[in-house]
Amino acid sequence: MKNSDRFCVIMCGGVGSRFWPYSRASKPKQFIDFLGTGQSLLQLTVERLQGVVPDENIILLTNEQYAGLIKEQLPQISDAQILLEPARRNTAPCNAWAAYHIRALNPNAKIMVAPSDHLILRREEFQKSVIKAFDFIEHNDALLTFGVKPNRPETGYGYIQLGEAIDDDFSRVKTFTEKPNLELAKVFLESGEFYWNSGMFFWTAQSIINAITAVAPEVAACFEGGLDVMGTAEEQAFINTMYPSCPNISIDYAVMEKAPNVCVERVDFGWTDLGTWGSLYDVSPKNRDGNVTQNSKTMLFDSHNNVVAVKGDKLIVASGLNDYIVADADDVLLIVPRADEQKIRNYVNDVKMTFGDKYL
Amino acid sequence: MKNSDRFCVIMCGGVGSRFWPYSRASKPKQFIDFLGTGQSLLQLTVERLQGVVPDENIILLTNEQYAGLIKEQLPQISDAQILLEPARRNTAPCNAWAAYHIRALNPNAKIMVAPSDHLILRREEFQKSVIKAFDFIEHNDALLTFGVKPNRPETGYGYIQLGEAIDDDFSRVKTFTEKPNLELAKVFLESGEFYWNSGMFFWTAQSIINAITAVAPEVAACFEGGLDVMGTAEEQAFINTMYPSCPNISIDYAVMEKAPNVCVERVDFGWTDLGTWGSLYDVSPKNRDGNVTQNSKTMLFDSHNNVVAVKGDKLIVASGLNDYIVADADDVLLIVPRADEQKIRNYVNDVKMTFGDKYL
Repeated sequence: MKNSDRFCVIMCGGVGSRFWPYSRASKPKQFIDFLGTGQSLLQLTVERLQGVVPDENIILLTNEQYAGLIKEQLPQISDAQILLEPARRNTAPCNAWAAYHIRALNPNAKIMVAPSDHLILRREEFQKSVIKAFDFIEHNDALLTFGVKPNRPETGYGYIQLGEAIDDDFSRVKTFTEKPNLELAKVFLESGEFYWNSGMFFWTAQSIINAITAVAPEVAACFEGGLDVMGTAEEQAFINTMYPSCPNISIDYAVMEKAPNVCVERVDFGWTDLGTWGSLYDVSPKNRDGNVTQNSKTMLFDSHNNVVAVKGDKLIVASGLNDYIVADADDVLLIVPRADEQKIRNYVNDVKMTFGDKYL
Repeated sequence: MKNSDRFCVIMCGGVGSRFWPYSRASKPKQFIDFLGTGQSLLQLTVERLQGVVPDENIILLTNEQYAGLIKEQLPQISDAQILLEPARRNTAPCNAWAAYHIRALNPNAKIMVAPSDHLILRREEFQKSVIKAFDFIEHNDALLTFGVKPNRPETGYGYIQLGEAIDDDFSRVKTFTEKPNLELAKVFLESGEFYWNSGMFFWTAQSIINAITAVAPEVAACFEGGLDVMGTAEEQAFINTMYPSCPNISIDYAVMEKAPNVCVERVDFGWTDLGTWGSLYDVSPKNRDGNVTQNSKTMLFDSHNNVVAVKGDKLIVASGLNDYIVADADDVLLIVPRADEQKIRNYVNDVKMTFGDKYL
């Protein structure tokens, strides 16, 4: 395969409300230097692809309001590489758009789809897995997903049940499952048959368009009237008019759970979905009291197992605090037990009901 | 007594470190709108004297660095009414200075001494007590203190043991006591013989100078070389040179506990020394969950008996938090159990050791 046939679609339009108030509607988590490395999660995602996917073949799928942030953080990306969704319609319409768009640019395109807010610890192994994946979809008419070897009974992820093995690295997919409860997650882990659903996909532009047309024709239908404008100056106008009427549906539900040719590459490169404060806590270095003081100045007395995240040069002094999330960002301070992190979304809704958009 | 003989010395040079980070070295608590009334504690203190002490007889004793804040908050006060201590030497030297200064302005001066950070709920009764106090010192060569009728076994205050009653309102003082433990405080309360030491004093300029000369001659000696410059343009230069060599000692210890003519007026006007977060919590209105959300936007879920104080328009969202102080001010956030508020001073010291003056 020519490197120039490799594309990567990075989805970076999410609002990250589970990380509020650190993640704000105006600057969601993928644009933040979450790990204190000096780079945002999005910048890390792009950097991770260097040498595997050419810079000019990276396509950013995002919401209109984040175009400025992307140009600021990724000056090497041209305007033409940024696809701006005029409305939020979940992952099926945006992946369909990306496929039609890229096919118009290069009918032989092989596409990787990557979220912008994951953490991957072992880049070299990641790149090897990516290259294998591109090779696999070149030689197999398959929709491929990365299944991550689980190392704990995680209840925050979906799982993929492996079907028939194709070779040492690839299997067919038997089922996708929702997030399990702890008991079930333990069974999954012990069975060796279940892998974490990473949300990273590989397919050729043509094979995903074929699959959408076959199993999600209501999504494909939205784009058929625009085939001749894809890749032209009229594309965005077409999308702006059509997109809001697309069905609001995920690519997992609309396609992956229904298509017959879904395969999984079994991978293990230190992957974490940084979806919640808990996952940030899990992957971050802790001091001897078990506190994660991500990128912040803190003095903690008699305090254990907290995650403290603060923007800027603020000092946090706390005592007698155990197992809390303390997140201070601009005009919002959040203090929530780590065990209650799933409630943060509810709190954000309450804030919206009470104060409107001011603090979102 | 002519009203023009009445003076009030307001001590407003303290740093209020027990209220850190709300109270900062650059703007201590007396300059802050602590109660959300729209006025600082100092402004409330001055307003409370209106009609009792002429504006032009109010003398502010403070530290050099707070002169700007005072002029900003009290535009009716002239530069001549602000005495700037070039060094911190506790309350004996500053009260001596005020007495020598005021005697030079008016040899018949009657002086009230008031802290700037107390809360008084019933102004009318306060003013009646003040007028009685001025009358008392006009007719008795006494050093008078306000003893507040206790309503609970408070362990955060010093107490005054009443001696022989002079009349319905006034008694001689038997002893001053330090802050008692809870057991002793209960005995004090039940006995009816102990009143809270408010730190408010009344004396004539001459009588306090006499007392200092008699029982604290080392303090009086500091000022004797400057008698002829008091009230003149040379006064500040004399003070700047001499003051740093004054003994560092409180007026209670140096004079009140030793002088033979100390009396107490028994008062009851809703007084609180806003010395700590606990005292702020005690006097503040609470919601049905027992939370004090002083002057701040908060959404508290499953949280009880906290005091939350925030500067500006910041939103606090907390859950599962009970019996804490949460104070957010500019570049510092403090989270401490209410029961540990006495440790805040230690934390401030640790902050100073670690970061220097940046966060003080």
